[in-house]
Amino acid sequence: MADKANKKSISAYGAARSTVTDTPLSAEDVRKMDAYFRASMYLCLGMLYLRENPLLKEPLKVEHLKKRLLGHWGSDAGQSFTWIHMNRLIKKYDLDVMFVSGPGHGAPGILSQSYLEGVYSEVYPDKAEDERGMQRFFKQFSFPGGIGSHATPETPGSMHEGGELGYSISHAFGSVFDHPNLITLTMVGDGEAETGPLATSWHSNKFLNPCTDGAVLPVLHLNGYKINNPTIFARISHEELTSLFSGYGWTPYFVEGSDLPSMHQAMAATLEHCVVEIKKIQKQARDSQKPFRPRWPMIVLRTPKGWTAPRKVDGKLLEGFWRAHQIPITDVLTNPSHLKILESWMKSYKPEELFKEGKLIPELKALAPKGNFRMSANPVSNGGTLRRPLDLPDFRDYSLKDIEPGVSVRGSMVNMANFLRDIVGRNLTRFRVFGPDETESNKLSEIYKAGKKVWLGEYFDEDQDGGNLTMWGRVMEMLSEHTCEGWLEGYTLSGRHGLLNSYEPFIHVIDSMVNQHCKWIEKCAEVEWRGKVASLNILLTATVWRQDHNGFTHQDPGFLDVVANKSPEVVRIYLPPDGNTLLSVTDHCLRSVNYVNVIVADKQDHIQFLNMEDAISHCTKGLGIWDWASNDQGQEPDVVMAACGDVPTHEALAATALLRKHLPSLKVRFVNVVDLFKLISGGNHPHGMPDRKWKAIFTADKPIIFNFHSYPWLVHRLTYKRPGQENLHVRGYKEKGNIDTPFELAVRNQTDRYSLAMDAIDRVKSLGNTGAGIRERFLNLQLAAKNEAYDNGIDPDYIRNWTWDYPRSA
Amino acid sequence: MADKANKKSISAYGAARSTVTDTPLSAEDVRKMDAYFRASMYLCLGMLYLRENPLLKEPLKVEHLKKRLLGHWGSDAGQSFTWIHMNRLIKKYDLDVMFVSGPGHGAPGILSQSYLEGVYSEVYPDKAEDERGMQRFFKQFSFPGGIGSHATPETPGSMHEGGELGYSISHAFGSVFDHPNLITLTMVGDGEAETGPLATSWHSNKFLNPCTDGAVLPVLHLNGYKINNPTIFARISHEELTSLFSGYGWTPYFVEGSDLPSMHQAMAATLEHCVVEIKKIQKQARDSQKPFRPRWPMIVLRTPKGWTAPRKVDGKLLEGFWRAHQIPITDVLTNPSHLKILESWMKSYKPEELFKEGKLIPELKALAPKGNFRMSANPVSNGGTLRRPLDLPDFRDYSLKDIEPGVSVRGSMVNMANFLRDIVGRNLTRFRVFGPDETESNKLSEIYKAGKKVWLGEYFDEDQDGGNLTMWGRVMEMLSEHTCEGWLEGYTLSGRHGLLNSYEPFIHVIDSMVNQHCKWIEKCAEVEWRGKVASLNILLTATVWRQDHNGFTHQDPGFLDVVANKSPEVVRIYLPPDGNTLLSVTDHCLRSVNYVNVIVADKQDHIQFLNMEDAISHCTKGLGIWDWASNDQGQEPDVVMAACGDVPTHEALAATALLRKHLPSLKVRFVNVVDLFKLISGGNHPHGMPDRKWKAIFTADKPIIFNFHSYPWLVHRLTYKRPGQENLHVRGYKEKGNIDTPFELAVRNQTDRYSLAMDAIDRVKSLGNTGAGIRERFLNLQLAAKNEAYDNGIDPDYIRNWTWDYPRSA
Repeated sequence: MADKANKKSISAYGAARSTVTDTPLSAEDVRKMDAYFRASMYLCLGMLYLRENPLLKEPLKVEHLKKRLLGHWGSDAGQSFTWIHMNRLIKKYDLDVMFVSGPGHGAPGILSQSYLEGVYSEVYPDKAEDERGMQRFFKQFSFPGGIGSHATPETPGSMHEGGELGYSISHAFGSVFDHPNLITLTMVGDGEAETGPLATSWHSNKFLNPCTDGAVLPVLHLNGYKINNPTIFARISHEELTSLFSGYGWTPYFVEGSDLPSMHQAMAATLEHCVVEIKKIQKQARDSQKPFRPRWPMIVLRTPKGWTAPRKVDGKLLEGFWRAHQIPITDVLTNPSHLKILESWMKSYKPEELFKEGKLIPELKALAPKGNFRMSANPVSNGGTLRRPLDLPDFRDYSLKDIEPGVSVRGSMVNMANFLRDIVGRNLTRFRVFGPDETESNKLSEIYKAGKKVWLGEYFDEDQDGGNLTMWGRVMEMLSEHTCEGWLEGYTLSGRHGLLNSYEPFIHVIDSMVNQHCKWIEKCAEVEWRGKVASLNILLTATVWRQDHNGFTHQDPGFLDVVANKSPEVVRIYLPPDGNTLLSVTDHCLRSVNYVNVIVADKQDHIQFLNMEDAISHCTKGLGIWDWASNDQGQEPDVVMAACGDVPTHEALAATALLRKHLPSLKVRFVNVVDLFKLISGGNHPHGMPDRKWKAIFTADKPIIFNFHSYPWLVHRLTYKRPGQENLHVRGYKEKGNIDTPFELAVRNQTDRYSLAMDAIDRVKSLGNTGAGIRERFLNLQLAAKNEAYDNGIDPDYIRNWTWDYPRSA
Repeated sequence: MADKANKKSISAYGAARSTVTDTPLSAEDVRKMDAYFRASMYLCLGMLYLRENPLLKEPLKVEHLKKRLLGHWGSDAGQSFTWIHMNRLIKKYDLDVMFVSGPGHGAPGILSQSYLEGVYSEVYPDKAEDERGMQRFFKQFSFPGGIGSHATPETPGSMHEGGELGYSISHAFGSVFDHPNLITLTMVGDGEAETGPLATSWHSNKFLNPCTDGAVLPVLHLNGYKINNPTIFARISHEELTSLFSGYGWTPYFVEGSDLPSMHQAMAATLEHCVVEIKKIQKQARDSQKPFRPRWPMIVLRTPKGWTAPRKVDGKLLEGFWRAHQIPITDVLTNPSHLKILESWMKSYKPEELFKEGKLIPELKALAPKGNFRMSANPVSNGGTLRRPLDLPDFRDYSLKDIEPGVSVRGSMVNMANFLRDIVGRNLTRFRVFGPDETESNKLSEIYKAGKKVWLGEYFDEDQDGGNLTMWGRVMEMLSEHTCEGWLEGYTLSGRHGLLNSYEPFIHVIDSMVNQHCKWIEKCAEVEWRGKVASLNILLTATVWRQDHNGFTHQDPGFLDVVANKSPEVVRIYLPPDGNTLLSVTDHCLRSVNYVNVIVADKQDHIQFLNMEDAISHCTKGLGIWDWASNDQGQEPDVVMAACGDVPTHEALAATALLRKHLPSLKVRFVNVVDLFKLISGGNHPHGMPDRKWKAIFTADKPIIFNFHSYPWLVHRLTYKRPGQENLHVRGYKEKGNIDTPFELAVRNQTDRYSLAMDAIDRVKSLGNTGAGIRERFLNLQLAAKNEAYDNGIDPDYIRNWTWDYPRSA
């Protein structure tokens, strides 16, 4: 059947050509599998076209069609074909397999399988396995109020939507880490394969431990075309393809062709070979308890785009061309002869032989696995149901102790690393830390004591010298924010917990991924049968105010703006001002579910403000007046100094100190904000506080000088409805930077103590000439500090300059 | 000298092992080149450490050092080494070569070359080639007010900063398209090589025409380590590396080792072989005028990280380990014995033999090319000086004619394609259109008539059937927004013009790249000798309001928020409401320089509003009252209906029509905004208008119902200071979507005509009971339309529903 692999051919047509040339199927097997395949193809077309007459019992008429035709046919056949062949092996070897659908808009392929396996009807009883159920199943597809054309959260068996392309492989790896028995069968579209995130994610195989992790079995689907272009991978030589994937560290097996009987044999043989290979590798590693990096198998499947469609319609190419990408025949509503072509095409699958009153006939039903062995029912794809809370030590045990507010200088991050270390240690199979080569730079290396960095590449002797590498690690570091984020998403969506740490400026690299994850989580919350997954926790450090020395490219705190646009049901943003608040916030985030939590905290040593009990109470409120820094007790203040973020808090407090020292009669209230969404009005975010509370804290009519970590406009965007918003004066990063000292960087953006104090003076009109004199003095102090820094190349007395000579309240 | 390549070794140590084993250098050549190399290494260390005593004429003391030590040593040697070897070939073959420095923070390597070649002193006369100049050159590096540790805009010869990693190869390709004589020598860091954008950009070789384009010569620098981790590429086998890059379509040549004499021979031989190979390929293609896809040569250079540093300090590894990444010996300010080590290390380069009073001795000077042949002086790296304006046809000739405002329905984008077609046709060597497989889907395929899609992959017969592929094309399509954006950046920075078209939701994929490009442009404007480059033009289409059918993953208009955070000197955002305004805006953007222009316009057929002369006048103002849609002539209105964006304008106009029909006595003013930054206050953006003008348009105290294309909060962020901002009621996309009809999507986000009309009624208090009755009617109309859509799976009378039965003003 299967010919010898033709090393030169790049045609998707003809009898199967494959690397593995066994013919494991009997003629009867082939007949049945082909029937199952036809059933799924029929269902795909039904989804694309039909709103009535699902079994074509009546002649097909325009009124049976949807009025607006939507959906994609292009990759459905290849995906269904692969799924069906894996079913055979799941049954034969009792495999635990999940399916990830990478190609864009390939949902019909997946949905058809779920319906054939009965899972769809179990989950959505109104889409029963009968004629009426099938009609509803068809109609809802890409229909207003229905379901989408990707593997959306409504899709049983899916934990990867594939709406935005590029993340199938990294998601798949995330799903198999610490799931030793799982095989994630991952279809990769050849369009998707051109994206950057996908291109580097093939290297994930250097981070997979064959003893403790499962396996990813990628099937690169050379479907040939994208929307309007051929794909790169379908137009390079067989040798180049082989080389490329060998170079990526995989063993590629080819299955190419269009002739169905021989393709069934080839795919059956190849997929089985790969599964056996995976099992062999795992056995070797597990028996010896000596992990290694094998050349894991993968499959390159080349089939015509829109496989099994008519090759041409009216002399124009359809099957095997980009016209088969979306709705294959577009004018059936208006062109009766094309309607006829559609009808005979659908009938060519012989639905009457496959379904009895809408239900797959028993002979074919028997081909699918049972219960949770059905890929569309794999519990891992609904990871929330598998999630168990983390075993968390009491974060209070890691407190920074004996804090003298505004005086003690400690490392918040380096301290938090102790907490994370013990979380890793207590949750060795369900918590991982992810980051692009910055965990140590971010002062989190204490974590390595509980779990080093996973590394399956070559080892050198020199790795003994502080390398912290191991095949058995818990920290995942690759210089690809995309891959780290993809792994973490896959890991949490499959029921586990994790944290990504990253430099703040480069988190924009994954704006789009985080956007998409937010959307996934939000929709999941609307799907009844989905369990809640652990929140996606993103710790941003190496923050803008300490990127003075790395310069302008490293200064961008704007990720918060991207996140703030996402659904309020999903996003949470915290800016703990010091070490104990950081602990409290982190503990909260790690306990939470179905959120995307962003924590912003710098990694350097910083002034501390709160002992643990105060920190907890402050974080619980989310924002509050710091009485100990204020002198307006029992009265209305003249001015409110507010801050959100660690460095901004230092400077705003220092400004408060300056004001109180030089203008002792001025009543200053100091407010700190940890939970950014407290600022927004109640109706617009669950954390938003009522205006009544806003007024009690910020007043309704006094000037507010607000020092913000990020771009100042975000605060205005959150507070535009607040009473007295016109008195709110926000400072933040205004895209002014270069190679500076931290002090100079602050001055350029007017977030330094002197600028803030001057802002206050400018806005308290009653100060008059006294204020003007003091203002002048502040300006001179600022200039002197600036010049000294410039001469020295460093802030005068670098750390102390950030400390704070403060007149304490009684 | 050079040993035969050891296929197994992955050590960076020992005598050179290389694919090409010639020894083209005389002993004298080696001596001189090594001296030149030592000079550059000396300068690198000087930049990292010294503020005084640049030539070490006095014994090194703490006071000669910078007080804060910053900068990176890790990749300096490999980059300098490569540069120096290319110098030899530039002279030998009269080559036109530009250098792209990919590795992070590798600037000292580049800066040292620029200083040695004399370019630095020509450009910055205070950094002259003398002792005082060298001292200033050293001190300014990573020093407040000085220059950064990447190849920032201040760096002569650089058009690629490398602050954020991943774009060196795509930038390099952008620079050589349509520059047939240019070779861009591109160092790729092995850290950078792990990023997604870099991983896919290797495929750029499928888009390079050897007849009309130059060549990229990549040098993958296996430096071994990132900040704290080994790199993947340094820890996979020689076979895997060879396979990987062969699979990517390159011919990899290896140069590996640490022994300098043999490494000089190996690099000289290999680089020369590659240059000759490139010339041969180009000759073959150009003589025959038959382009083909050759296996272009590339080099894999494996040297120890921090090469030429001490191997160990105090028993801890330095050279060849990640500790050599940044400042190699960190405690010289406080540890006298380490200061001694530094001194003898610096002296080991023998500065006294290399420099005479700070100037490189003539014998070594002679090794560098002259004039613009010096890579640090290559004019392409300062592309603004090469830029000539586009030859633009008169956009008025492409007007949509006989527009009946609010009635005519036309395709704005498909019409604009005619204009773009002729721009392509008139500028065949300096204008390209870029996009990730969406140019046709975005209705721009008319462009192909002037220049088809570049494709150097395999061709099939079926490509004749509308494939629009050619080796000589002008449209660049690869399913990687990163690569398309990188190409475009490289193309414009090297003096040409272009436009990227993309689906709106997935432009977030390149948030970070656009951020970085904005930063580059902003800093360039501060560098006197930099010419102004063509603006980066981004056309966003397939916009949120018509992503109803693709669902939630395809709905994200938030890119504007990212752009709005960048410097007002650089960013411009336009939302033309119809076809003629789109033409006018596009013409303006293509004439502009040093901006990032974002144009948002949908690709579907839409209602048109303005004839060309009105469109020009409207775009010139940036926003304005549409008198023909308003009935407040000569009076204060009761309510202002405003809109920004095409679909939002339709709906806001339809709401205006509803109000005027049902409440004829209500005075309604209609305002349309094209230029988003008009909304911001004057001081905050060059386009911002004064409050006086704001009041004249929006009033100071009347309710404003503002229908916005993107997330509504962006408008609040821009207008928070405006008089009467509390009367501003903004609707926009609020992250509410699923599989819907366009109408239903609008209703969910309250941007449909009925919601807007109800918003107006709710805010014009004087309407009383009359208003309440009409409101009820609108609610019922809305519900009816919604239900009809749900039943049919399509908006009732799909296009007409978006038209507008409008009572025209006199």
